[in-house]
Amino acid sequence: MDTSYGPVVPTPEAVSALRPLPRDAVALSPASLLGGWQERNTAATLPHCTGQLAEQGNLANVRRVTGADGEFRGFWFADSDIYKTLEAAFWADQEVGEIPALLEKAQDPDGYLNSYYQVDHRDKQWAELDFSHEMYCAGHLIQAAVAAARSASGDAAVQVLSVARRFADLLVRRYAASNEVDGHPEIETALAELYRVTGHRPYLDLAARFVENRGHGVLGEGRFGPRYFQDHEPVRTAAEVTGHVVRQVYLLAGAVDVAVETGDTALLDAVERLWDSALDSRTYLTGGQGSRHRDEAYGDPYELPPDRAYAESCAAIGSFQWAWRLLLATGNAKYADEMERLLHNGIAGSTGIDGATFFYSNPLQLRTGHDGSHEDAPSQRLPWYSCACCPPNLARLMASLDNYTATGSERGLQLHLYTAGTFRAGGHAVEVETTYPWDETIAVTITEVGPGPWTLSLRIPAWCTDARLTVNGDPVPAGGGHVALNRTWLVGDRVELTLVMLPRLVAAHPRVDAVRGTAAVVRGPIVYCVEHADVPFDAEFEDLELDPSAPLHVSRDGNGLAPVLLRIPLRVRPTDTPHLYRTLPAPARATSPVAVTAIPYFLWANREPGPMRVFIPLSER
Amino acid sequence: MDTSYGPVVPTPEAVSALRPLPRDAVALSPASLLGGWQERNTAATLPHCTGQLAEQGNLANVRRVTGADGEFRGFWFADSDIYKTLEAAFWADQEVGEIPALLEKAQDPDGYLNSYYQVDHRDKQWAELDFSHEMYCAGHLIQAAVAAARSASGDAAVQVLSVARRFADLLVRRYAASNEVDGHPEIETALAELYRVTGHRPYLDLAARFVENRGHGVLGEGRFGPRYFQDHEPVRTAAEVTGHVVRQVYLLAGAVDVAVETGDTALLDAVERLWDSALDSRTYLTGGQGSRHRDEAYGDPYELPPDRAYAESCAAIGSFQWAWRLLLATGNAKYADEMERLLHNGIAGSTGIDGATFFYSNPLQLRTGHDGSHEDAPSQRLPWYSCACCPPNLARLMASLDNYTATGSERGLQLHLYTAGTFRAGGHAVEVETTYPWDETIAVTITEVGPGPWTLSLRIPAWCTDARLTVNGDPVPAGGGHVALNRTWLVGDRVELTLVMLPRLVAAHPRVDAVRGTAAVVRGPIVYCVEHADVPFDAEFEDLELDPSAPLHVSRDGNGLAPVLLRIPLRVRPTDTPHLYRTLPAPARATSPVAVTAIPYFLWANREPGPMRVFIPLSER
Repeated sequence: MDTSYGPVVPTPEAVSALRPLPRDAVALSPASLLGGWQERNTAATLPHCTGQLAEQGNLANVRRVTGADGEFRGFWFADSDIYKTLEAAFWADQEVGEIPALLEKAQDPDGYLNSYYQVDHRDKQWAELDFSHEMYCAGHLIQAAVAAARSASGDAAVQVLSVARRFADLLVRRYAASNEVDGHPEIETALAELYRVTGHRPYLDLAARFVENRGHGVLGEGRFGPRYFQDHEPVRTAAEVTGHVVRQVYLLAGAVDVAVETGDTALLDAVERLWDSALDSRTYLTGGQGSRHRDEAYGDPYELPPDRAYAESCAAIGSFQWAWRLLLATGNAKYADEMERLLHNGIAGSTGIDGATFFYSNPLQLRTGHDGSHEDAPSQRLPWYSCACCPPNLARLMASLDNYTATGSERGLQLHLYTAGTFRAGGHAVEVETTYPWDETIAVTITEVGPGPWTLSLRIPAWCTDARLTVNGDPVPAGGGHVALNRTWLVGDRVELTLVMLPRLVAAHPRVDAVRGTAAVVRGPIVYCVEHADVPFDAEFEDLELDPSAPLHVSRDGNGLAPVLLRIPLRVRPTDTPHLYRTLPAPARATSPVAVTAIPYFLWANREPGPMRVFIPLSER
Repeated sequence: MDTSYGPVVPTPEAVSALRPLPRDAVALSPASLLGGWQERNTAATLPHCTGQLAEQGNLANVRRVTGADGEFRGFWFADSDIYKTLEAAFWADQEVGEIPALLEKAQDPDGYLNSYYQVDHRDKQWAELDFSHEMYCAGHLIQAAVAAARSASGDAAVQVLSVARRFADLLVRRYAASNEVDGHPEIETALAELYRVTGHRPYLDLAARFVENRGHGVLGEGRFGPRYFQDHEPVRTAAEVTGHVVRQVYLLAGAVDVAVETGDTALLDAVERLWDSALDSRTYLTGGQGSRHRDEAYGDPYELPPDRAYAESCAAIGSFQWAWRLLLATGNAKYADEMERLLHNGIAGSTGIDGATFFYSNPLQLRTGHDGSHEDAPSQRLPWYSCACCPPNLARLMASLDNYTATGSERGLQLHLYTAGTFRAGGHAVEVETTYPWDETIAVTITEVGPGPWTLSLRIPAWCTDARLTVNGDPVPAGGGHVALNRTWLVGDRVELTLVMLPRLVAAHPRVDAVRGTAAVVRGPIVYCVEHADVPFDAEFEDLELDPSAPLHVSRDGNGLAPVLLRIPLRVRPTDTPHLYRTLPAPARATSPVAVTAIPYFLWANREPGPMRVFIPLSER
């Protein structure tokens, strides 16, 4: 077992510009934003998920396989929630209790394990791959086993890995020469990672086969057509991302794993092209993806409604994991930029400050009069969902968050996500002091040195147009991408990076119809929003406009939510006549000015439910 | 039987400001727009629907009840398509073939009739009212019987009416003291109409009971919560329309029928309030309603995305039928205005010029690169749908369209929808000559007179700010609503109404985020759109802007689609960088002017598939 690593560890032979650090090479400060999220995850989210597995029947479903009474509860892929929670527990070094033994007991002699198909639906086993999620569930079991192998020692880890391998071996026996695929990708990346843990090549070969099998119409029409499954065209030739977003990003994460392990640069190029198609026309300002509730899908290019943003939490997680793989493969800082945007906005916003309530979809606008009575589009985070994929997915990501902050090797260290903490690579160690993203300065002090010269690389985010860098007080040029500082370091050397964070107004491309004539307020990597609780006249929330000619102010007064808020200049339209349509030119109406506090988007909906906007209509000058 | 009337005939005792005309009192000119639609319906749409009933298995489903082999095909409410087609055939005075005899043969001795529940699902009969559509199907059977009673004579009509009455009598026996309701309204208006045909009071009482039963949570959570069924609050106290749009408008049409027949003015007031809530914040410029694909629902107030407009054809039909009932009850011209808008835009656009292809949802925008591969949001009209509610619904509406154009009594005639044709009421007859809505003038000539004074009423549409009226050449004031001309008429008297139709730019209320900074081009009652086929540079379709300072021109050159097109002043943005978000202020970009033909929205997608817009971004001045 290659213990002591986090998610995604390319083999030494893989195409990989950057290399992940061992788990013990990174320690986030609990006082940092990221470290705090990780602590909250361990203290609140993970126990909450574990409790829900018992309460919602997920574990009881598996016990039925071992002879217990009762009805199957929840969605047919409810086992996956167990596996994701298990993975989170391994990454967080928490107890996993009875689960490994239960899985071992429930597993069929041939390796099959799926509590939905093992009891009531034996006759349908492997017979409805389009929607069965059998290999999706298997994939999450394998991911849990990979986490076990890399993080834990002891019986539980061995038990989970052996259960997962038995299932993986079954898949190899059954599908190594098949043209079938599962309707929901996940198995691809799981098998590639299991190959990395075990060195057993058939796992990688099967992952590669599943990537290639997809795109030939093998899944049929389903309810939403072949594009929903990305089964309309192979990854290699597809021109754009499409269909169900989580399926798409999981598939492409797996395709990167296959590409780097097989040296298939054509496949890697294809995935990079698809990444561009997503980022150029199908991504929200928060990093969220998915514009349609009906089929949880990307929509057309530039179809990005803020109110009906689906932006599923799992899609943001999958996009983050996809970006991490592309960052490792290419070293291109744009992938780390996207990880930063996702983490601080789309992902962070999906969990409440209590760590135990969650959004499934993550809209960028909630209207006055919103009907939040149904879990499809609630006005506030809910403790759980009938389809509960997101909460345990957040738990497994947050549990391994430290592993995504930096990369390194004998030759150097690359800092991607800025956060206070300590980092080690190649015999060197650094301490990072910062209150980023609230403040502009990241101070890196060399605390240990190894032999010879060594490179410290710092990412300059694309959002920053004024980056200032010094080494021991001497200015150093800081361009875009990663700045590489190669020298023979001394203990006590101090690097200071200042990422000037003027609050700025951001507008979307003119083809994004849904937010035409509006702007969002952004500072550093943080997208802000205006929320009802900070607007002292609730009924007129819908009549607010932003004055683009007036300055934005940083406020450190705080309201208990965040250390840095913004005061933004709004104008209030007079509440208008009820006529829904009017002939132009419409008479000009006087507006009145008001300054309102904007809060980080990721903190919205932590007070009483009410309207919110990221994109604010611009008042005409 | 009260033969020779169309849909909706309030009893003499009903609250009814206006009275429908007998079927033979109206004859539309086949050369008129409305008369042409009616002819196309008989020649193309109705035979197409009849053919599909055979091809898609609807009739075979019923034959299974009588012993035929085969599997049930289509949705569980597929019987309703038969009934709607049957209703259309009766209104159009067409042969109905074997269907009445088949229904009689399939009906259970107790009156039950539903091919889904009679064969494979006997045990679930009446057991799953939330989604069973059993009374929805029964309602459409009854509507067909009402059409039979009012339009046809002969065995077929008698047969269908007796089948429907047996089913209605079963419903009375079963539900007269129940608190249950069907998940999909339709039975309410059907029973009220059956009462009107038969005078059998228990039908009306049951309709009233179903209206009152709803709104008390009797249908449970379902998949989308109680609001989806309008089961969260009774009609009497609901503050706003919500949930599944077709369910809502069918329910409210039925509530009007009950209110006018029982003299329940409080209920009528409630329905009028709900109407205002729909029109003030939840209706598209085309009259369409329904902003969400996922649950086919209204959305929040002012949530009106043009691209994801659901605006189901059946919702437009239901809204039209609802408006007609409110027009009869109140005489308020605003309801006729809405009928006009719906008919010429939302409804007309749902059928192709071939009369045999249809839209289910009716978007107001289709983007370059739209994925039209699935029937949820196709790029062009389809011959049929897996849920085929819309095509036969269009057939039954169009078959009875003449009955919606005017009302009258002994005392006068009220013209609501302008179209060439002849109209008779109270011993008087008029001939209307017009090419409306292409031209501005409606000429009404008195061709027969009865005894004494008589009132000719003409609707002045709210869209018209310059209406000119003459009687025998003498000007007469023409205010809003209906203008009533009361006099002793002579044969040959000529009334001319000119509704000046300058093309105009129309913008939405500033709270409608989705079309901020855009305008639509409208002339008279017709909403126009820009379609790819008229823009000679397809790739840049998404970069078009409308110059609001330049004039709009009427064009009668034609392109084979319509007699009146518009030439509108556009500007083309330079195709932009791919960056999806940019910091403001963005640099100004030079645009280039181009004049483009706009076509009536209802004629879109009759050429090769491609992008279309109703709301065009306004260029900044």
